[in-house]
Amino acid sequence: MKIIENAVGRLIPEEIDGRKLKPFGGANSDEGGGRKIGPPIRAASQYQDKLLTSLDEAINACDIKDGMTISFHHHLRNGDRLVNLVMDKLAQRGLKDLVPAPSALFPCHEPLVRHIESGVIHHIEGSMNGPVGKACSLGKMRGTAILRSHGGRYRAIQDGDLPIDVAFIAAPCSDRHGNANGVNGPSACGPLGFALADSLYADRVVVVTDHLVPFPCFPWSIEGGNIDYVVEIDSLGDPAQIVSGTTRITRSPTRLLIAQYAARFVEDSGLLDEPDFSFQAGAGGVSLAFIKYLAEIMGRKGVTAAFARGGSTEVLVNLLNEGRVKYILDGQAFDLTGVRSLRDNPFHIETNPFVSYNYHTKGCFASLVKVSVLGGTEIDLDFNVNVNTHSDGWLLHGIGGFTDAADAQLTMITVPLIRGRLPIVVDEVTTVTAPGEMIDVIVTERGIAINPRREDLLDRLKGSTLPIMPIEKLKKIAHDMTGTPAKPTFGDRIVALIEFRDGTVIDVVKELHEDF
Amino acid sequence: MKIIENAVGRLIPEEIDGRKLKPFGGANSDEGGGRKIGPPIRAASQYQDKLLTSLDEAINACDIKDGMTISFHHHLRNGDRLVNLVMDKLAQRGLKDLVPAPSALFPCHEPLVRHIESGVIHHIEGSMNGPVGKACSLGKMRGTAILRSHGGRYRAIQDGDLPIDVAFIAAPCSDRHGNANGVNGPSACGPLGFALADSLYADRVVVVTDHLVPFPCFPWSIEGGNIDYVVEIDSLGDPAQIVSGTTRITRSPTRLLIAQYAARFVEDSGLLDEPDFSFQAGAGGVSLAFIKYLAEIMGRKGVTAAFARGGSTEVLVNLLNEGRVKYILDGQAFDLTGVRSLRDNPFHIETNPFVSYNYHTKGCFASLVKVSVLGGTEIDLDFNVNVNTHSDGWLLHGIGGFTDAADAQLTMITVPLIRGRLPIVVDEVTTVTAPGEMIDVIVTERGIAINPRREDLLDRLKGSTLPIMPIEKLKKIAHDMTGTPAKPTFGDRIVALIEFRDGTVIDVVKELHEDF
Repeated sequence: MKIIENAVGRLIPEEIDGRKLKPFGGANSDEGGGRKIGPPIRAASQYQDKLLTSLDEAINACDIKDGMTISFHHHLRNGDRLVNLVMDKLAQRGLKDLVPAPSALFPCHEPLVRHIESGVIHHIEGSMNGPVGKACSLGKMRGTAILRSHGGRYRAIQDGDLPIDVAFIAAPCSDRHGNANGVNGPSACGPLGFALADSLYADRVVVVTDHLVPFPCFPWSIEGGNIDYVVEIDSLGDPAQIVSGTTRITRSPTRLLIAQYAARFVEDSGLLDEPDFSFQAGAGGVSLAFIKYLAEIMGRKGVTAAFARGGSTEVLVNLLNEGRVKYILDGQAFDLTGVRSLRDNPFHIETNPFVSYNYHTKGCFASLVKVSVLGGTEIDLDFNVNVNTHSDGWLLHGIGGFTDAADAQLTMITVPLIRGRLPIVVDEVTTVTAPGEMIDVIVTERGIAINPRREDLLDRLKGSTLPIMPIEKLKKIAHDMTGTPAKPTFGDRIVALIEFRDGTVIDVVKELHEDF
Repeated sequence: MKIIENAVGRLIPEEIDGRKLKPFGGANSDEGGGRKIGPPIRAASQYQDKLLTSLDEAINACDIKDGMTISFHHHLRNGDRLVNLVMDKLAQRGLKDLVPAPSALFPCHEPLVRHIESGVIHHIEGSMNGPVGKACSLGKMRGTAILRSHGGRYRAIQDGDLPIDVAFIAAPCSDRHGNANGVNGPSACGPLGFALADSLYADRVVVVTDHLVPFPCFPWSIEGGNIDYVVEIDSLGDPAQIVSGTTRITRSPTRLLIAQYAARFVEDSGLLDEPDFSFQAGAGGVSLAFIKYLAEIMGRKGVTAAFARGGSTEVLVNLLNEGRVKYILDGQAFDLTGVRSLRDNPFHIETNPFVSYNYHTKGCFASLVKVSVLGGTEIDLDFNVNVNTHSDGWLLHGIGGFTDAADAQLTMITVPLIRGRLPIVVDEVTTVTAPGEMIDVIVTERGIAINPRREDLLDRLKGSTLPIMPIEKLKKIAHDMTGTPAKPTFGDRIVALIEFRDGTVIDVVKELHEDF
């Protein structure tokens, strides 16, 4: 097997499971080429009443066979019931070697582990948060898992790298024609954009809803013209786990300090004094605190953001309502206030990974975002970021939108310098999720490091009173406190590929055993 | 050349201009198959600032060559300036054999005739209303024109039958990223859906606007991720010709009677007593009167329509505002009230030919419409309808959405029995646009004919006091008044194909000369 070193120095096999791999060549080196996949042409005359009486009837109608790829979205997050329901039914039918292709899995999907062990599941193409990721690390899948970012998943489906046989779309609200959205119904989750590519490109598409409404179900985030069957079931999931009642700003003094540093960094960068300021932060405690501090500075300076990028939260919605941001461009809602605002406020706009994140477009808005604030599990001296594995080697997180959101004009990683006695800034990350060339600033409670590639930023921050220092110094502070931790001992087998947003492989994850 | 008789008895050549033709086989006989076309894969990194300084710069950037297909939409109708502007520039560059692919042309596009005569234009694929249609009839194009319905055009682009090299999209409102809509700006026209397929499938896409706004331009009927270049020009067209200030109900007693008969027919059919009533009518004087009469009946019976299908007009918007219809599903706005309502009322929904009309989908909503009221130039004893040519043989009209809207559950043609001393009900239509199997009722001022295929309707109307009679009788009344008019004498050459919504050829139009 030929092994190639990619542009971040990671060793990538030329081929795996019969799939030719392209090694990562740089964040913007891919220039496109070729053509998108053409989905099957169907005729309207073949579609009369799409409403079937049960999930079993839909599975029968889709004629699911061994080895097929079955997709799901993750807007219902840890409250999702559909993935387990469908996979259990497929297992009961004795199907083997299936390839689930969820946009992401959560701890609630732990029941899939037994389908992996029994061979019902061959491998998973999708983000795996928690137990299923751990099972992957343990080498339980027969095939190699593939992790993609939100934008990368859309790209892979669109480009034909991830052909989906049957998509099951959990739809909080749908009509009999299959028009569906996520803003109404007991399982309301906000946007449904993670399912868009599936609806457009899968051979067969089943909308599963627990809230059937008369035609037209509008907004039609998912369009009926792409849907084969509609099934009504009692409940798609646990509302309390789908969105939080509220999302909370961190109370940890360390994390508040990080958030404050990040906000001050934005101020000192001068970006707030330029037109069309925009920002993206997540729903984590630090991100919410960052938004709060940033909003205070914006208020003081009289700055209005042209837009803020969701995931939406009460904190962000308040800024929209106060006129501090003109639009929220929202890919997922994290709390009930986010869902309601998306439903009711015309300036709160639903997006999907095509418009927001897909690299294989004529431009998506990831690169229009001025400031993006992200987290990570490790950062190394080359500014490479790991969000997938921990320092102990376990694959426990998906990519989310990380590699896509890192295309912002100022990408900041906010992390505590030390977590659980382990340093977060290290010589070399366990897994490279995003290349250092995309990462501009690391903000910790002990200091801030600017990527030396960004000479412009170093210039802009010259007069700042923030504790700006070389990343090597951050690393030294951390390691002086923790010592240099032992590296995990991996097996030889590659259990997962970390795909960059352009379809190249930026890193691989190797097998790990509890007793290694 | 082999000639095949199609399912409505018309003779279709096996091939024309090197293009294999499929003869029409029945309204619902096509079952799909094959795959949609895959557009080129581009990379976001290749797209920085898309805003160019002039149309010439965009034409340069698109590298337009002889023989290329250049597309446009017709939302600016007879007020459009862009088609002539672009085609003049291409002519000045000495380009030849171009194939304009507008969704429709209007009388304002007469200047194209000289580009047809000079060979700049090889042929046109699109609807031609007025002078360009006449030039086509006269055999002025080197190639054979192809006319498609709105849904048929989307299908042809999606299926790869109409590959577009460069699309120019007149956008009343756009940002620098190419997100565009038709609801704001001096050239506001309402929806922009006729340009959707072009934006998704053309190799290169240029958004041309006279109202550039900051990102994000929302709604983004056209998504920036599909756009190569953005150009700002002074004016896209003449607002007074883009939409009417107001649309008016007919004052002709004959036409009012036709509208009243049509509305009473709907009442007597019992459809208003069933759930989920919905209807579609146009912006013509009879259609508006029909809506008015229908609304009176609905009001009396306490019926609320689940939706009404646009084109939108003040008459329709009033019903929305009064709660008589729950939603307007709107493909084009015909007056300013329609544009404003689309912009401001969340129950006034923009649609496009994919969701509304495209036969090569997993169902579009054309077949969900209960009652569709359409016009025509001729109807024959088989209920075939002609909307393209007149009895004198001239090709003067596009198909519009006719063949698509005729997929409604009750398709009614409202026409005066006689126009300009010519009978409208004839033995055999000059051109078959839609097959009789899709047409349920012909409503004239002298009588109403029900298609004998619709035994259910004949049953439903048994007790009606309306002047229901066989179509043969309608024809006799007309011909008794007008005599049997002379048929036009066509030449041998086929100048245009009338394509059915599934991509088959339902009829051809032959050459005609003033002195024949």
